[in-house]
Amino acid sequence: MNSAAYTARRDRARALMLERGLGALLVYMDANRYYLSGFELHDPQINESSGCLILTADGRDWLCTDPRYAEAALEIWDKDSLFIYSGGKEAAAGINALLRGRSKGVLGFEARCLSLDFYQEVTRGLSTQRADGLVESLRMIKDAEEIERISVSTALNHRLMALVPELLRPGRTEKETAWEVESFYRSRGAEELAFPSIVAVGVNAAKPHAVPGDSRVRENCCVLVDCGCRLHDYCSDQTRVFWVGDKEPDYFRQALDRVREAQRLAIEAVRPGVSCRAVYAAARGYFERLGVAEHFNHGLGHGIGLQTHEAPSLNSKSEVILRPGMVTSIEPGLYYPEWGGVRWEYLALVTEDGCRTL
Amino acid sequence: MNSAAYTARRDRARALMLERGLGALLVYMDANRYYLSGFELHDPQINESSGCLILTADGRDWLCTDPRYAEAALEIWDKDSLFIYSGGKEAAAGINALLRGRSKGVLGFEARCLSLDFYQEVTRGLSTQRADGLVESLRMIKDAEEIERISVSTALNHRLMALVPELLRPGRTEKETAWEVESFYRSRGAEELAFPSIVAVGVNAAKPHAVPGDSRVRENCCVLVDCGCRLHDYCSDQTRVFWVGDKEPDYFRQALDRVREAQRLAIEAVRPGVSCRAVYAAARGYFERLGVAEHFNHGLGHGIGLQTHEAPSLNSKSEVILRPGMVTSIEPGLYYPEWGGVRWEYLALVTEDGCRTL
Repeated sequence: MNSAAYTARRDRARALMLERGLGALLVYMDANRYYLSGFELHDPQINESSGCLILTADGRDWLCTDPRYAEAALEIWDKDSLFIYSGGKEAAAGINALLRGRSKGVLGFEARCLSLDFYQEVTRGLSTQRADGLVESLRMIKDAEEIERISVSTALNHRLMALVPELLRPGRTEKETAWEVESFYRSRGAEELAFPSIVAVGVNAAKPHAVPGDSRVRENCCVLVDCGCRLHDYCSDQTRVFWVGDKEPDYFRQALDRVREAQRLAIEAVRPGVSCRAVYAAARGYFERLGVAEHFNHGLGHGIGLQTHEAPSLNSKSEVILRPGMVTSIEPGLYYPEWGGVRWEYLALVTEDGCRTL
Repeated sequence: MNSAAYTARRDRARALMLERGLGALLVYMDANRYYLSGFELHDPQINESSGCLILTADGRDWLCTDPRYAEAALEIWDKDSLFIYSGGKEAAAGINALLRGRSKGVLGFEARCLSLDFYQEVTRGLSTQRADGLVESLRMIKDAEEIERISVSTALNHRLMALVPELLRPGRTEKETAWEVESFYRSRGAEELAFPSIVAVGVNAAKPHAVPGDSRVRENCCVLVDCGCRLHDYCSDQTRVFWVGDKEPDYFRQALDRVREAQRLAIEAVRPGVSCRAVYAAARGYFERLGVAEHFNHGLGHGIGLQTHEAPSLNSKSEVILRPGMVTSIEPGLYYPEWGGVRWEYLALVTEDGCRTL
């Protein structure tokens, strides 16, 4: 990404600001900030920020950060529009002073991201309006370079999944296997995991967010592997389930066949103009007709890009209409606490006339 | 940690609630939640929570989470006090309904952590009071098991640092070296990095938060390595700076000697009853007397435990008084954009009569 590409993204965000009558927009959420500037994809921890962006209607944009990041910021941002605040509690007051001096009109802000404390300090004396989802609405439609990067990240994920059957040797723990998965990605250039890998043996596979522990792969059990990497900034996410041992039991095969069929029906439903909940319903309805819907206890999928979980969500309530350039996971599952569970996941890119799995 | 230990921690938090006149406390911040319950140390991403705790004055505590975590929650929490909410936007409304039905009196909440949006939903119809720092004030004083775990994590960090000179082979990139560091930790049982490792060659060492890139280790340059791991939940953090090549130049040696002396003076100042800013001043004052204080542009240190950065902070403004059981980094540095910089870091445990470096 060159600096002109970030400028173009900020101009698209500015057009949305003008539509909403915003004089300025405070962009604080890590992935939104990075999407619009290339500055710091991550915050150091939940209660510590790397900085924020201020977009103004008059076209001058500010990058605000603390002294730790000053050198890094100067590599990608004009010095005259860089604002260095004191760290900690003084950040909000410093940014507030900048906003009062420089921006006119209503300030848009991310109400789902700013803490109450930060919000109250940073907006003191300013008129404000919620702007949640403004940047996310741009991020939801991936451009050609983003699609390429998600594809490359996913290609590495496919290579990993092809190797997994070899990794699932009886006696090896979930934790050891998860480390093999991570090493595979990282030694091939991935920056990090897209999310903590799930390697779930037997009954652990019934937990949609199982944490790899000391359970060992053994003969005649299912192992669910759900993992992805971040490569050139973009996330991948795939789930597969494996049977270790020669004799795959009928209950496992039946559950897997059902999940794959639900996935096929959902992918068939993905095309521009269709609502996210209709796609969810395609999978859910199939499980309902079979009488097993109670074993499917999570959403069908989520958008993916700079974050593993982003808009749109495929669930029973989402009114979002699919458009070309959206990328979403399709990951139905069926879970049985007495023996485990199955889930299968692909990423689907919405195209002009349907979709393509990556 | 057994469940009685978590119960004891919640009872200590409850005593602080009663002092402040709180009928309930909503604990949302990831590390606070984990400290008091053992449930999920991490949230999946910045705008997505794993769940929260509600402590009530009458002694009944609730764990609230979404269906993805239900199985995991039941392994550590009584079913009758587990509240499963619908995910996404309905979480706050669901928790609000629980609070209205079950808790009496003023609700304490973390204003620096709850988003404005979540706060407004979750506290609807309730009287509230800020309780930032309540749980953190407990976490600041480490118990014997926590000190043991930080020590073990730090011991692994010392082993890593002893190996670093071998890793710094000319031609190897910062990124490759950082991966060697991570592999070392992970293959020896660490759950994850405590924070993204810094491996900064030459002028990159002037950036306090340099990101490892494609710069290569070369003969006759400084390399700054700042890294730590999470082992048995607890973080370690150490910084060293190395000169690659035979001829360590005077400017490097002089800067390093000054940093080590500032560190020695700071450690000498650490004992119960002393303020954090006095410890900072011990290092800063030394740099000022030498006329190099402008090259020291960050705080002197930070508490460490479940998070890499936690209370107390050693900076020019912190009035926090040191007490036995606190663990803080002591990491002065001097930075020179024209050639790089030096930083050296130890962790200091405040003891009854002074401190002990870990």
